[in-house]
Amino acid sequence: MYDRIKGFRDFYPGEMAARRATIDGLEDAAREYGFREIGTPALERAAMWTDKSGDDIVDELYSFEDQSGRHVAMTPELTPTVARMVVAKQQELSKPIKWFSTRPFWRYEQVQQGRYREFYQTNVDIFGSSAPEADAEILAWAADALTGLGLTGEHFEFRISHRDILGGVVESYEADVDTEAAIRAVDKSDKLSQAEYHDLLIDAGLTADQAAEFDDLIASGDLDEVKAFADTERVTAAVENLQNVLAAAEDFGAREYCTISLETARGLDYYTGVVFECFDSAGEVSRSIFGGGRYDDLIEQFGGQPTPAVGVAPGHATLSLLLQRAGVWPAEEVTTDYYVLQIGDTRAEASRIVRDLRERGHVVETDVAGRSFGAQLDYADSINAETVVIVGEQDLANDEVTIKDMASGDQIQVPVDEFPGNRERPTYDDLA
Amino acid sequence: MYDRIKGFRDFYPGEMAARRATIDGLEDAAREYGFREIGTPALERAAMWTDKSGDDIVDELYSFEDQSGRHVAMTPELTPTVARMVVAKQQELSKPIKWFSTRPFWRYEQVQQGRYREFYQTNVDIFGSSAPEADAEILAWAADALTGLGLTGEHFEFRISHRDILGGVVESYEADVDTEAAIRAVDKSDKLSQAEYHDLLIDAGLTADQAAEFDDLIASGDLDEVKAFADTERVTAAVENLQNVLAAAEDFGAREYCTISLETARGLDYYTGVVFECFDSAGEVSRSIFGGGRYDDLIEQFGGQPTPAVGVAPGHATLSLLLQRAGVWPAEEVTTDYYVLQIGDTRAEASRIVRDLRERGHVVETDVAGRSFGAQLDYADSINAETVVIVGEQDLANDEVTIKDMASGDQIQVPVDEFPGNRERPTYDDLA
Repeated sequence: MYDRIKGFRDFYPGEMAARRATIDGLEDAAREYGFREIGTPALERAAMWTDKSGDDIVDELYSFEDQSGRHVAMTPELTPTVARMVVAKQQELSKPIKWFSTRPFWRYEQVQQGRYREFYQTNVDIFGSSAPEADAEILAWAADALTGLGLTGEHFEFRISHRDILGGVVESYEADVDTEAAIRAVDKSDKLSQAEYHDLLIDAGLTADQAAEFDDLIASGDLDEVKAFADTERVTAAVENLQNVLAAAEDFGAREYCTISLETARGLDYYTGVVFECFDSAGEVSRSIFGGGRYDDLIEQFGGQPTPAVGVAPGHATLSLLLQRAGVWPAEEVTTDYYVLQIGDTRAEASRIVRDLRERGHVVETDVAGRSFGAQLDYADSINAETVVIVGEQDLANDEVTIKDMASGDQIQVPVDEFPGNRERPTYDDLA
Repeated sequence: MYDRIKGFRDFYPGEMAARRATIDGLEDAAREYGFREIGTPALERAAMWTDKSGDDIVDELYSFEDQSGRHVAMTPELTPTVARMVVAKQQELSKPIKWFSTRPFWRYEQVQQGRYREFYQTNVDIFGSSAPEADAEILAWAADALTGLGLTGEHFEFRISHRDILGGVVESYEADVDTEAAIRAVDKSDKLSQAEYHDLLIDAGLTADQAAEFDDLIASGDLDEVKAFADTERVTAAVENLQNVLAAAEDFGAREYCTISLETARGLDYYTGVVFECFDSAGEVSRSIFGGGRYDDLIEQFGGQPTPAVGVAPGHATLSLLLQRAGVWPAEEVTTDYYVLQIGDTRAEASRIVRDLRERGHVVETDVAGRSFGAQLDYADSINAETVVIVGEQDLANDEVTIKDMASGDQIQVPVDEFPGNRERPTYDDLA
C-alpha cells in the first residue's frame, strides 16, 4: 500500500546481522582507542550549511521549515554538529576530546551502487591536538578497525596528502590563482580527462604550461621535489608535517597502509592539513571507500577558541562493498543457540528451561504460536538453531527431555532436572 | 554561532555512557529472546500518517516536500514502517517474525520533562501469532529488560487491559455509541476530572447515568463483573484472552509485574486486543513509562495478508526518569583501563605497550598532544584511568616501566619486556 522512498533502505534481520557485526567492529576498535561515544540530533539549523557557498551539500540538503518557522535541515554530515558541541562546552571538556558515533545522514543525491540518500557513517574525531600523533592515531584507528573486520594490506590503502602542499604549490606561482578552486580541480582529477583537468586548473588561474607542470609535479608524489619546487616556508612545513605523521603512524602500526598521493585533496573546503582517502588496493571498488583529515579552523569559524581537529568517517555502504569484494563480509543470517520445542501441555517446564538458558546469556526461542512439532522444527531450522530442546509430555512423564543437534540430527535424552544443570552452554556433544 | 534546535539533544560522553548501558540492557534481553535487529528509514511517505484522521500524530509530523515533490515525513513512530516491511516480504519471512530496533523518532510536541521532539525508543514486535504466549512474551521481555537494568517489582508495574473489554462493554449499551471516542475518553481519564471524563463519554453517545455506571464498572477492574454486565461473546472472549495471557505470563516469570487495569486503553486506534502500560509503582514519575499491545488489523490495512501482531516500545527518556528515581541509572562517566604516559622520546616503546593492551580488548589512551607529565596525569585522571603506565626515558634505560594505580597512588617498576607479558589485564595489585 505504501512504498519505500527511493534511496532509503529497509534492513531485514539477515543483512542487519552483517551490518551490526561491521558496526561493532568499528566501534569496538574506537572504544579501545579511548574514543567516547556521543549522541547527536538529526536536525540542525539549515544555516549551518547554507551560510557556506560553493558546496555541493547545499543543493543536496533535506531542509524545510518546521512548525514554528525554523529553517532546519536533516544533517548531511556530522562535523558541523560536533564543532557546535565542542564550542558549547569548550571550557569544561578536557583535551584532547576524542569522540565517535554511528548514525545515518541524509543527502538528496543520485542513487547508485554504494550511494544512498540515507547513509550510515561512523565518525571518529580528535579535538585539541595539533601534534602529528593525533593525525596518526586517526589513521591507526582506521587501519585497526579495517584489519579487525578481516581486511589486510592487500585489500586497502590510505592515500595521504597535505592541504598546504597543494595550496602552497599553487600559491608559489606568481599568478593570481583561486587556491580552493585549484584544490577542487585536483580532487576531481581522477574522474576527468587530462584536458578537462587542465581546463579546471586554467579556470582557477594557472596558465596552460603551469597547469601541465603542476599536474606532473603533483602526480609524481615526490616530497623532496615538491619542497624544492615551491621553496616556501608553507610547503616545507607541510612536507615535514606529513613526514612526521607518517613516522608516528609507523610507531602506531599503520604506516604500511599509507601511500603518499598528492592528488588526494578531499572536496570539502574545511580541511587544513593532512588529508587522506581509503581506496580498494585492487581498484575493484572504484570510488573512495571513505576519507578524513585535519580541519584546524572549523571550531574557530563556529565561534569557539582556536582548536585543532582531525577526523575520519567511514561510510558503511562503500565499506560493505570493499568487505564483500575481499570476501570478508559477515554471513547475512541470524543465529540461534537454542530452540525449546513444546509437545502437548509442557509450557511450564519448557518455560523454566528457556529462562535458565536465557539467564546464561544465550539466544533462545520457544513456541509462542501454538504450533505443531513439524512446524516448530521447521521454524527452528529457519532461524539456524544450533540445538533443539524437545520438551514432550511423554518424555516429561519419565522426567526427561530430548536434546537434538540440528547440524547432525543426533539426539539424546537427558534428565530434565539436569538441563541445563550447572553447564554454561550444554550441547548434544557435551551430553552424548 | 549556531544554536541547537529546541527539543533536540546533544549527548556528551558521560550521559551517553549511561544511555548506552541502558540501550545495551534492553537490546541484550531482546537478543536473548530471539528478537532480531532490523534497520529502518528515517523518512516515509507522509500519507502513512495523514491518510488516518483524528490522530494527534498528524499535527505533530515533521513533514515536507522533498526535491522531487514527494510529501515525506520524519517517522514519528515505528509501527507503520515495520508493517510496511512485513507486507513487502510476507511470503518469504518465516513466522513468527520477531524484530527489534533502537532509534530516534520525531514529533513536534510541547517539550517537557521526559518529552522531547527527538526521542529514542527500542521497538520490539512479534508478527504472525495470535496466541496468548505472544502477548506474554512481549510482557516477559519488558519485565526481563527492566529487571536487567536493576529495577524490581517495587519500582514498576504493567497495567494491563484488553481493547475488546472496553469496546465490548460500550457496545453492550443499546445507545448509538462512538466506541473509539469512548476508548479515547478512558485513555485520557486519569488526566481529567470525573466530570470532564463523563462529559467525554456522553459526547461519545452514553447517557449521564450510563457514563457513571460505565466509569464504576471499568474502575473496579473486576473481570467476572464485567463479563456478567456485558454478557456478550465479545467481552467473554476478551476476558478469557486476557486471563490466558496472564497465565502464560506466569509461566514466563512476568505475572508478578502485571496488574489488571481496565482504564488502560492506549490512545492509538490500531490496538485490537491486550494493551498495557508500564507505570512507576511509587507514582513519582507520573506519566506512563511506555506502553504496548496487540494490533491484529494493521498488516491487513497496509495491504498484507491478515497477520496478528503484538509489540511494545520503551521510550528512553521516560525510562531514564524511572531508573533515576529508582537509583539505578548508570554512572554518567567514562571509564578507561589504561593511560600510557610518555616522558621524553619514548613513543616507540609506549606505542608497543598501547597496542599490546588494545589487542587484549582494553580501553587504552596515550599522549597524542605532546604534553607534559603533569598534564598527561591530569588528563588520565579526567578520563578515570584505572592504571597509568609511565614510560620514561630513564626507566627505559633500565628496561623498566612504572605501573601506577590511580585510586591509591601506589606505583611499582616492572621489566618493560614483561608488560603486559602473558597477563590479560595486569594492574598494580597483580604486579606488587
